Parts: sequence; C-alpha cells; structure tokens
Amino acid sequence: MNNSTFFFVLLSKLKPKYDPTTFRCYFYNLAPEKMQHTDSEEQIFRVRKLEIADKGKGFIELLQQLSVCDSVSDEEFERRFQELSSLGDDHVIGVIEDEVSGKIVATGSVFIEKKFLRNCGKVGHIEDVVVDSTIRGKQLGKKIINFLTDHARSMGCYKVILDCSLDNKVFYEKCGFKQKEVQMVRYFI
Amino acid sequence: MNNSTFFFVLLSKLKPKYDPTTFRCYFYNLAPEKMQHTDSEEQIFRVRKLEIADKGKGFIELLQQLSVCDSVSDEEFERRFQELSSLGDDHVIGVIEDEVSGKIVATGSVFIEKKFLRNCGKVGHIEDVVVDSTIRGKQLGKKIINFLTDHARSMGCYKVILDCSLDNKVFYEKCGFKQKEVQMVRYFI
Repeated sequence: MNNSTFFFVLLSKLKPKYDPTTFRCYFYNLAPEKMQHTDSEEQIFRVRKLEIADKGKGFIELLQQLSVCDSVSDEEFERRFQELSSLGDDHVIGVIEDEVSGKIVATGSVFIEKKFLRNCGKVGHIEDVVVDSTIRGKQLGKKIINFLTDHARSMGCYKVILDCSLDNKVFYEKCGFKQKEVQMVRYFI
Repeated sequence: MNNSTFFFVLLSKLKPKYDPTTFRCYFYNLAPEKMQHTDSEEQIFRVRKLEIADKGKGFIELLQQLSVCDSVSDEEFERRFQELSSLGDDHVIGVIEDEVSGKIVATGSVFIEKKFLRNCGKVGHIEDVVVDSTIRGKQLGKKIINFLTDHARSMGCYKVILDCSLDNKVFYEKCGFKQKEVQMVRYFI
C-alpha cells in the first residue's frame, strides 16, 4: 500500500464530529471509546467531575505527583468517593481526562464552607490542584481553577481561597487571585 | 451594716461547687444562671460547642469584631446552625462563655476536609477565631485553638491548617503552628 492509499483508507475510517464548546470540528475514530486526533494541538481537554472509574485511569498516580499518596485500595477509594459524593455540590473534585491516552492528567477540588460570618456567607476552599508533569503548558491548570472557581461562585460563595507555595503565586495571580494572608500548619504525624 | 456583717450575709448566699475538670472548688450564687466569683483570677473559661441559644449571648456581635457580619435573623441563624449540626463532628464551632456576664467572649471553628491525598487523609481547617477585645490577655485564644486542634487530632487528621495575617503569626507559633505557604484569594463580591 503506497502513502496515498494508506491515507485514503485511514480517512474512510474517520468521521467528523463537531464540538459545540470550541466551535471546532474534529475527526474521531469509529471505535467509540478511542479518539484519534489529526492534530495533537487540537486535542480538547474538558473538565468534568471525578468518577469512580477514575481510579483505574491514574487518578491516584497523578496525586502522587503532588504529595504523599501511597497505597489506596479499591475499597478505600470507593468509601472515600461515597463519603464525598454524599456532600453533593459542597465538595466537588474536577478532573481532566486525556481522551487519547484515557488517563487523568489534571485535577483539583473545592469544598464549600458555610459560615455565620459575612451574614451566613459561604467560602470555597480550593485544594489539591495538580497537572501531570508530562503534559504541562496546555493551560490545564487554569481550566481546573476556572472550573472550581465557577463552581464556588455558582454555590453563592462570596470568595474562593487556596494556599500555595511562593513558586506558584504568579500562576494563581494569572487566574485572578491575590495574596492576602499566610498559611500556618501544625502536623500531627 | 458593717463590713464583717456584709461578708457574712454574702457568704451565706453562696454555696461551694466542685469543678471536676479543674479539680478546683468555686463559689456559685444561689441563682442558678449567675455565678459570683470570689476572685476574678479564678474565673474559669471553658470551651464548649456552639449552642443555638448563643445567638442571644452576643455570638454574632463577637464575630462582628472579626469581619463583616451585619444582620442575621433568628431564622437565618437557626437554619445555618442546623446545616452545620448535620455535619456532626466534621464541622465544630467552639465558644467560651463568660459565666459572669453570660456573654460569648471567644470563638473559632474547625471543619474536617476528607481527601484522597495522603492515603485518604483528613485535614482540619481552622477558621473565624476571635476573642472579645475587652477581655484579652487571659489566653482565651489559645484555649480556643487548643480545643479546635485537639478536635482535629481526635478526628484522625494528619495536620491542621489556618490562614492568618502576619500580625497574628507569632500568636499561632506559640500555639505550635509554623508558616508554610501563602493564602491566595479571589472575591466575587
């Protein structure tokens, strides 16, 4: 098979698909679970809520890039997942799945604190933001932060806060955050 | 009535009461809700959980010393109180009531965040710590922090965190905390 025949066969197996969120048209393989991008730059990275199947897609391995997270059994994962699910919109974990590799490549969480202060106000707390080190530079961190921030706003929070290292301060400033206080910590173990 | 007669009458109206938490004996007035201390230095300031009646004891007015907290109706207070109560030990508000004045003079809250990170670990978040400006210097802040920290530890948290101004950093260092990161904030209103 020469080159032109190869591409003809390849194209005949692809069908175009319109993405309403980006107004772009992409080619997906006929196999429903696998998408073949014609141009890696056009790959879409959408944020969605964590699903229980994401443990098998490298979610825990991604968290390991952020901090200590050794062994989480399927039972432990499912128990914690159900605990968090029971909180509904008061605790949301966003993830980005790389639709080509099927791996979770970015995540972050937000939980809604209910106060008496600020006239019974609410505050969104963003935690555990991490982007796969092999896939940085595609604004995935910003997409995660925007997703979590939008969620906090939609829940009626008057502000959203997070703690970060000084190294990451510039990134969060680009996301519309400003430094306010200092974080103090006391470890038990 | 001379002085000795006055003190005789006064003592006859007091009865001793043993406090099992401090192993001390205090004199309380016969009126059940009012305690008359024989020595102001012996006044006990115990931390307890917030009760719904604390709105009438100046709880909201105390929060106003910390930040904006204008109008909270009885209905709003009760609704928020019930919301937080439904979280059980995952969200606890500690208060100190001045047993002489019957006013809430210190408060702070802690909520327990459940993570996947750190092997499905938990983190205590301390918020909204304030001590009545007219009654400072009696270690009430430290008592509140110890109460909240002990609660987080008892809930199995691997750490407890809080955000504070640089002015308050030394106080939290005395409570066993260390500065780690910076707090970033984005306001919606």
